[in-house]
Amino acid sequence: MIRFNSDYTEGAHPAILERLAETNFVQTNGYGEDEYCFQAKQTIKKVCNKENADVHFLVGGSQTNLTVISSTLRPYQSVLSPVSGHIFVHETGAIEATGHKVEALPSTDGKITASQIEEKYLSHIHDESFEHMTQPKMVYISNSTELGTIYNRAELKEISDVCRQYDLYLYMDGARLGYALTCDENDLDLPFIAECCDVFYIGGTKQGALFGEAVVITRDELKKDFRYMIKQKGGMLAKGRLLGLQFQVLFEDNLYFQLARHANETAAFLRKSISGAGYSFLIPSPTNQQFPILPNDLLAELQKKYVYSNSQQIDKNHSAVRLCTSWATKWEDVKQLAQDIEGYNE
Amino acid sequence: MIRFNSDYTEGAHPAILERLAETNFVQTNGYGEDEYCFQAKQTIKKVCNKENADVHFLVGGSQTNLTVISSTLRPYQSVLSPVSGHIFVHETGAIEATGHKVEALPSTDGKITASQIEEKYLSHIHDESFEHMTQPKMVYISNSTELGTIYNRAELKEISDVCRQYDLYLYMDGARLGYALTCDENDLDLPFIAECCDVFYIGGTKQGALFGEAVVITRDELKKDFRYMIKQKGGMLAKGRLLGLQFQVLFEDNLYFQLARHANETAAFLRKSISGAGYSFLIPSPTNQQFPILPNDLLAELQKKYVYSNSQQIDKNHSAVRLCTSWATKWEDVKQLAQDIEGYNE
Amino acid sequence: MIRFNSDYTEGAHPAILERLAETNFVQTNGYGEDEYCFQAKQTIKKVCNKENADVHFLVGGSQTNLTVISSTLRPYQSVLSPVSGHIFVHETGAIEATGHKVEALPSTDGKITASQIEEKYLSHIHDESFEHMTQPKMVYISNSTELGTIYNRAELKEISDVCRQYDLYLYMDGARLGYALTCDENDLDLPFIAECCDVFYIGGTKQGALFGEAVVITRDELKKDFRYMIKQKGGMLAKGRLLGLQFQVLFEDNLYFQLARHANETAAFLRKSISGAGYSFLIPSPTNQQFPILPNDLLAELQKKYVYSNSQQIDKNHSAVRLCTSWATKWEDVKQLAQDIEGYNE
Amino acid sequence: MIRFNSDYTEGAHPAILERLAETNFVQTNGYGEDEYCFQAKQTIKKVCNKENADVHFLVGGSQTNLTVISSTLRPYQSVLSPVSGHIFVHETGAIEATGHKVEALPSTDGKITASQIEEKYLSHIHDESFEHMTQPKMVYISNSTELGTIYNRAELKEISDVCRQYDLYLYMDGARLGYALTCDENDLDLPFIAECCDVFYIGGTKQGALFGEAVVITRDELKKDFRYMIKQKGGMLAKGRLLGLQFQVLFEDNLYFQLARHANETAAFLRKSISGAGYSFLIPSPTNQQFPILPNDLLAELQKKYVYSNSQQIDKNHSAVRLCTSWATKWEDVKQLAQDIEGYNE
Repeated sequence: MIRFNSDYTEGAHPAILERLAETNFVQTNGYGEDEYCFQAKQTIKKVCNKENADVHFLVGGSQTNLTVISSTLRPYQSVLSPVSGHIFVHETGAIEATGHKVEALPSTDGKITASQIEEKYLSHIHDESFEHMTQPKMVYISNSTELGTIYNRAELKEISDVCRQYDLYLYMDGARLGYALTCDENDLDLPFIAECCDVFYIGGTKQGALFGEAVVITRDELKKDFRYMIKQKGGMLAKGRLLGLQFQVLFEDNLYFQLARHANETAAFLRKSISGAGYSFLIPSPTNQQFPILPNDLLAELQKKYVYSNSQQIDKNHSAVRLCTSWATKWEDVKQLAQDIEGYNE
Repeated sequence: MIRFNSDYTEGAHPAILERLAETNFVQTNGYGEDEYCFQAKQTIKKVCNKENADVHFLVGGSQTNLTVISSTLRPYQSVLSPVSGHIFVHETGAIEATGHKVEALPSTDGKITASQIEEKYLSHIHDESFEHMTQPKMVYISNSTELGTIYNRAELKEISDVCRQYDLYLYMDGARLGYALTCDENDLDLPFIAECCDVFYIGGTKQGALFGEAVVITRDELKKDFRYMIKQKGGMLAKGRLLGLQFQVLFEDNLYFQLARHANETAAFLRKSISGAGYSFLIPSPTNQQFPILPNDLLAELQKKYVYSNSQQIDKNHSAVRLCTSWATKWEDVKQLAQDIEGYNE
Repeated sequence: MIRFNSDYTEGAHPAILERLAETNFVQTNGYGEDEYCFQAKQTIKKVCNKENADVHFLVGGSQTNLTVISSTLRPYQSVLSPVSGHIFVHETGAIEATGHKVEALPSTDGKITASQIEEKYLSHIHDESFEHMTQPKMVYISNSTELGTIYNRAELKEISDVCRQYDLYLYMDGARLGYALTCDENDLDLPFIAECCDVFYIGGTKQGALFGEAVVITRDELKKDFRYMIKQKGGMLAKGRLLGLQFQVLFEDNLYFQLARHANETAAFLRKSISGAGYSFLIPSPTNQQFPILPNDLLAELQKKYVYSNSQQIDKNHSAVRLCTSWATKWEDVKQLAQDIEGYNE
Repeated sequence: MIRFNSDYTEGAHPAILERLAETNFVQTNGYGEDEYCFQAKQTIKKVCNKENADVHFLVGGSQTNLTVISSTLRPYQSVLSPVSGHIFVHETGAIEATGHKVEALPSTDGKITASQIEEKYLSHIHDESFEHMTQPKMVYISNSTELGTIYNRAELKEISDVCRQYDLYLYMDGARLGYALTCDENDLDLPFIAECCDVFYIGGTKQGALFGEAVVITRDELKKDFRYMIKQKGGMLAKGRLLGLQFQVLFEDNLYFQLARHANETAAFLRKSISGAGYSFLIPSPTNQQFPILPNDLLAELQKKYVYSNSQQIDKNHSAVRLCTSWATKWEDVKQLAQDIEGYNE
């Protein structure tokens, strides 16, 4: 079986395994207080053009989200999220388990707008019962989103401006940030994101690392005592060096972006082939996740050779599915899949 | 100013104050382990026709909701609620603060249906990522609802049946249960509710008591150690006798239902007058909360003499507002308000 | 049976019941936003000589403790408490249930010292693993303590100074503050406490009210959004007026202190009698809780007429017990008990 | 510098890195639902002789502890731990952050006894205020302990018996279980531990893996829905295969025990040398952690070449420190250290 069901079906880029092997017997301090983490933090601050940011490495995305959000909010404060946001849908209530409500804003493309945020905030403060409701204090967005879509410069700037106007914290989940930043439609870059967001993370797990997410905190008041939070929430890796080493490999020579670009290119090839074969998509996505709407009979055929995910009935005879590419996707597999779709006769 | 903004604008029915005064110097044990509580528990079990139920008295509604729900669910389990449910909207995230997600089901009239619950449950267990989502385990309904509407016998039975089929707990918030059970359209009674629900509460605060809610637990597995939970969540009143005394007064001679009926009658009078004057309602409510849609100019006039709440813009010139009656509502006030509405010329 | 087992065995001082009856039909806003609460807040600020304090009324002590502490601390921060502190021993883990560790400092008399606090704090910040431990951030003391003892001016000042030096918040649980402030040994007063503490509460439940505790927040950074916290934790009484009315009665004419003095006087009478009969005490207490060590045979006799609490084996033939007096304690009961103890022949 | 400050100063045993490299491009499902995890679970059940156990792989120890404990307890229940237990001291309140009190039992050697547990439990249920206190429901022990000591067969059996008698869950933290099971004094084995404990974990992080702990749940009622808990608490590794692969390498050919034995042998060499040089120990430890009490002047010398941890002043001129060996400790380093200690003249 050839897997297109997620972007974490393989191990890690070989350069990472090599670095781990090379440094295996070097002794270091634990808990991220080693030379490799120090170096990787410097590297990341540099690519973000934010010397005074704090950078922390955590193991996984849900862990990162729950640690960042619970570190930021007071008990009665909530985080706003698109209704499709990972924290609202796919973290088994991890945020609520830290005591905070996630308030969903409607969205069909995985994104929310500055005006939605403003409207929600104003409706809260003007409600006569405001103290009987959770207080919106953080905004969660993901880029690329769970539907593969991306924010552009103007959109992000507007969201950031609204957040600053109303003293809301802006947090970007960058589990798939590389895919967003290397797709054709993108006009964002890390320094701009670091300017606009109070905290964000750069995802490793889904972009070539064994695991790991790099949290970048740019707002001073969110920096204090963050390591206590990581430890309390179970996210402080004893051999923290493993995280530093991986991010150093990914960012010292732009490997991170090369890998993401490969995923986007293979996805684009699929998109064009599927589109050329006359099929439409649930959502137009410029990144590594594609959501074609295909005949159920074709899907039944594809299932014999390929694994896809998130199947969703569209009408009696068609379903949308998710196809993911990654740093490890082989051109031959993509071409085979395209051929199998193009060759299908309804 | 004459207040129609809530059903807790006065103190308590005089019979309650009298009973408190009469018993004031009797010495009792604390924390609800006194003779008055014991007696009131017996009384309530009897009116519910449930000898083997457990009855506990708490001070307020949000406290009761958070205690019951957090006592019932394991950490990853969620409670389903209509989108208008008090726990979803008006408890400052009290349920989330105990670690649990409240999952909102769409509703325009404050109610949810058995089929909505079934669909939600089935969609959870059939989702390939079910372990990445909160597990629905409890269903929260209120009767009467936050919009004044009520469940009938068939609806409640269907909901109860679905809950039992899928091993979901059914919890009824009865902050305004008296109003529901004494309105003209009602075909429910306490014994039937006690049969259908695993746990519910009979509200005192909004129905003539100084404060107090009587939790009735009918399902054995939810009974264990509930007093530990009350204490931990800050709801164990030192002078618990105050709760027992009030519920005994309310239920020993049907005072509870008499008071509720008065509120419904005064509300019905208002409803008919407003309707007769040509105005419509946001929702048809047979209980003590009425939601007329009135011209903004009329509301501007009414504001000089009356207090109402929950104002909500409907169109450029009209708003819906909430008018509440209660055990203490005076006929003269209701008649005056009706007159002032009828006398208005647009 | 005559109860000396707690200071909340009766209802409330009659003046409180009278006020409730007088105002019963006045309509007010809910949730503490009424004229009576406003007035009582002014009164309390005045007796504390703290015009810019925030005052809030809650129903009970555990509820108050958990609301104040969880409102103050970030998730990884802990509160220091004497090992006998109510929050450490007798609140069913209410503080931990909000996510915070209570760190116990050794104590035999219910009190802790400034140097204990300093030592604990310094040992934390000098520990190489400090981020792997909870960070002490609040100090909890009670006055009078759970053992009836009190802090004097010098002790409180030292504690307050240490807390300010290390930026720790000082919180005083005043469930029995009146008893402390009216006993013979006391040299504290409310204004001095308001100067020394960042937040404290004045207890009503155990000192003549039906229920109720008045939280006084003097430190600005702890004031923000406290009402959201009260609501979320289930402590916002719908008919908040009941709290305002009671505190107004207790403080408008010093009734609070008169009632406390009566309790202390009856306790002193007991103490002298018991001491005169040759018995010793677990701890020398100048307030309304007395802990005599009595022969088990005598206790067996006393049990037939009296209720006491907290029995604790001292040696084969003796146990310490707690005897509480209150505003409602009758001189005749105290005299009878003294006589019964004095008349006992071993 | 040569590090003896912990047992996680290097990467992983080379056999693990090799296996990761070999399998790197194999595509698998995520979240621990892959063939490698399946195989490793079978292997572990076999070495534990518990076919019907559930095995789960998590990344780190604190994460494992908080997930297991919060999955087991109801909100008002507490876990008993030696005062030196990792969950009580070194997890930044992670257990409390899930809402549960950790109740410390006195211990000087890192262990607790069956009779301490029984006494604590009985004192709870016989306390008149039992509902005002947390209810002990789980017992946490570690083996080897944080002080390097171990439980023997008789001790563990007694603890297990007491736990079953009072329906308490027994949980063993096996972060250093290999060291315990391979030291000379040990008479325990995995099948016996699996019989005695309701849940325990086998530590990988400190015993040759890059990271990873294998949770073994033997008690049926604790198995249900555990994966929801892992996900919610942020412990579900996307590339779960990494955990399965590592445990398979460690257990398929007894590598785990060989590595642990090496650490114990190098530690024993150090112990004998230090003892032979006339120094005593804080605690007699038969495993890889040694706590010699050394002159401060000697320590000042050693600091120039070696890193140790947990320094603790014993008297004016002496301190106890911790020296850890591990799977990666070189004999030459141990011999050099021994020589440097032996060669010191006071």
